[in-house]
Amino acid sequence: MAQTFQSPPGTRDFYPEAMALRRYIEDTWRRVSLRHGFVEVDGPTFEYLDLYKVKSGDEIVSQLFHFESRGEDKTQFALRPEFTPTLARMIAAKANSLPRPIKWFSIPRCYRAERPQKGRLREFIQWNVDMLGGETPEQRRQFDLETAALCLDCLREFGVGSEDVKLLWNDRQLVEELFKLGGVPAERFGFAFYLLDRVAKLSPEQRGKLYAENSVSAGEKAFFEALAAGSNPLGAEFWKDLAGGGEFNAAGFEQYSKAISDAQQQIDQTLSLIGLPGYARYDASIVRGLAYYTGFVWEVADARGENRAVAGGGRYDRLIEMFGGPALAATGFGMGDVVLAILLEQLGKLPKDIARGTAAAEVFVVSALDSADESVRLIGELRAAKLAVGASYKTTKNIGKLLQEASGSGAKVALILAPAEWERGVVKLKNLATREEKEVPRGDVVQAARDAMR
Amino acid sequence: MAQTFQSPPGTRDFYPEAMALRRYIEDTWRRVSLRHGFVEVDGPTFEYLDLYKVKSGDEIVSQLFHFESRGEDKTQFALRPEFTPTLARMIAAKANSLPRPIKWFSIPRCYRAERPQKGRLREFIQWNVDMLGGETPEQRRQFDLETAALCLDCLREFGVGSEDVKLLWNDRQLVEELFKLGGVPAERFGFAFYLLDRVAKLSPEQRGKLYAENSVSAGEKAFFEALAAGSNPLGAEFWKDLAGGGEFNAAGFEQYSKAISDAQQQIDQTLSLIGLPGYARYDASIVRGLAYYTGFVWEVADARGENRAVAGGGRYDRLIEMFGGPALAATGFGMGDVVLAILLEQLGKLPKDIARGTAAAEVFVVSALDSADESVRLIGELRAAKLAVGASYKTTKNIGKLLQEASGSGAKVALILAPAEWERGVVKLKNLATREEKEVPRGDVVQAARDAMR
Repeated sequence: MAQTFQSPPGTRDFYPEAMALRRYIEDTWRRVSLRHGFVEVDGPTFEYLDLYKVKSGDEIVSQLFHFESRGEDKTQFALRPEFTPTLARMIAAKANSLPRPIKWFSIPRCYRAERPQKGRLREFIQWNVDMLGGETPEQRRQFDLETAALCLDCLREFGVGSEDVKLLWNDRQLVEELFKLGGVPAERFGFAFYLLDRVAKLSPEQRGKLYAENSVSAGEKAFFEALAAGSNPLGAEFWKDLAGGGEFNAAGFEQYSKAISDAQQQIDQTLSLIGLPGYARYDASIVRGLAYYTGFVWEVADARGENRAVAGGGRYDRLIEMFGGPALAATGFGMGDVVLAILLEQLGKLPKDIARGTAAAEVFVVSALDSADESVRLIGELRAAKLAVGASYKTTKNIGKLLQEASGSGAKVALILAPAEWERGVVKLKNLATREEKEVPRGDVVQAARDAMR
Repeated sequence: MAQTFQSPPGTRDFYPEAMALRRYIEDTWRRVSLRHGFVEVDGPTFEYLDLYKVKSGDEIVSQLFHFESRGEDKTQFALRPEFTPTLARMIAAKANSLPRPIKWFSIPRCYRAERPQKGRLREFIQWNVDMLGGETPEQRRQFDLETAALCLDCLREFGVGSEDVKLLWNDRQLVEELFKLGGVPAERFGFAFYLLDRVAKLSPEQRGKLYAENSVSAGEKAFFEALAAGSNPLGAEFWKDLAGGGEFNAAGFEQYSKAISDAQQQIDQTLSLIGLPGYARYDASIVRGLAYYTGFVWEVADARGENRAVAGGGRYDRLIEMFGGPALAATGFGMGDVVLAILLEQLGKLPKDIARGTAAAEVFVVSALDSADESVRLIGELRAAKLAVGASYKTTKNIGKLLQEASGSGAKVALILAPAEWERGVVKLKNLATREEKEVPRGDVVQAARDAMR
């Protein structure tokens, strides 16, 4: 009557090798975050469903796995699709007692109720980094770049450098200037951000429908279509080619393009000081769809233009207030494990023999004695001395075969309990790399094994 | 229009200090598991609801958070209440390609849809350890004790020893012998295990109802009531006092008590060899309610008799087959983070200053130069050299105040960029413990900081 089961679509079984890769990714995120002075936090895996509507409106519900509380009150809960609402709730609750700037990171598992695709699973792990505070525009820009620098430094730790990825940046306020140049009325900026974010993913028919529904004028339409075609609004042709556009605002354009080149220069300069030159590129198409961004926005993308963005983030200065907290400037980013692993594999940056790295024994005990008691005792002593110990589960007493297993275990040394030596009260210690052997009195074995690890 | 939210009942917000405790617990579990040669695995946070019925029947559903798949098929999924069904599914799928014995551990978050109580939350973290394989009864007993020894060694790593906790053990097969002595017919053993597990938690009325529903005889009833009253079936009075019991099976009793003392002796001997003497105690009341256990069962309990069991497990030799795999002997245990943290706190074993331990800077950069550029550059270099670096976000150039902040950061050394020294091309390196200072040429600063960490 046995049934067989599989994991649900879009989720993963982490067998030892897959788990070793996950640990490698998570440990690297954590280590580099701490190095940059961020501290780790986390929240519940599920939250009140309503929490997710604050920032994303009712339409988010269809993208969530949600369920009813059992018993009393039939409250609706949802599996977290991202960490930001939890972060905003936690910060809002304690904003005044937390030392500023708040520098938090987290490594939550997140969930999306959508059809799984390459690089997008239903369950994934996301590194979140957020920095809150900043009294002046200069300090807030510093925090923007400090978080982006952590992202780039961490990719460098994975072996991914400026030849592999670029930091594509934009600024919501500069995009508003662009909208003004394109003749978009201020009351339609929200729609325009939405459109710009999706424009490359929509068909001409879908775009036409959106224009009609939102009373978009012919001039605006030409502007959006030029952006959809990938034309660069910093090039003069962009504006010349706009069919039906009004008079070209040359002074406004000059101001807009100067603001961009000033910002690019400042970003380059700061990232170069930090030791991360050559990453930053202005990209007019980066707007980060989410409505809560208020300023600097960025993505880290494959320099070859392949794959999804490996990380993305920006400034969100009004979010903490939306969750009942004080006005608090904030900037941050997220990076998912699935896209990162694909990138590392494509670039040949996955460490070799990753599974063995995390599971390796340091010392391997080999015994050819009649009774198992002495090896059991020695293994217990070695583990009590905090050494990672392997031993064979085979019944053979053939030392050659057992030493083969020892070599395969990744251990640096084998300790050999052989009858002749044992009678003289000694154990053989064999360095498995150099194949050197020496005899060690039984009472000194644990210390000798520890010394061999140095 | 700001709304305020709290975390759902029975879940936790992990602010930095709580997160540091969680990391300390998880890291310790992981480190000691690896030391004993176990490798880490994990599975999805949710599984097909039906997976949980295989081992626990339909009644499990009311204890689960479950939800419908979105889109196509309306499949039911459930948040995992434990890891064992996922483990059994994963092992069943690859049993023949995995090297034996299989030694796996995992540290999943798990979920229970019940009213939160002290030591029992709706979301918790559980360390799972499982060892599968074993051709002979001797080897299987060895694996039982190897997993239990890992549990005890890990508690020792937390500072909890044999004076604080005991390993209370029993064996399902010995319990069956006890049932026979008590006159319970073989067809009622399943019910008897269930009853024995719950007997102390049920009221006399609830017990009476169960007896009536299951046609329990007067003799059996007296036997169960004696167990419910906490009488020890190894004592002769237990059997004398049984009202309405049939003839006392003295030979059977002798065999039963000898089997227990033999097993106790063997467990003591093996755990002593491993270096873990003084933990094991036979306890007739330990049966581990879950129907899938087949042999050795155990709990690790507070020696003072307070709190819930901190860990529990046993042998489950038929489970992998129930999930469609081959016949495969198996033994394992689980330990939850909530009960463990309560125990550590009560015993005064929580490390002091735990939050600071994980967030500490190694080097703190202090600058009184006019421009921030030089400190930004130095911090970048230090982080690129993999050092954890702190720096002040204050605008003051008062070196005394900045050094106070450096001392509070946990850093071992401060690097001081002061105008006079900077003009001579040197930086002051101050050991924050010894208060010694020395001058280091700017070009040698990173190496000097690294050397100071040794």
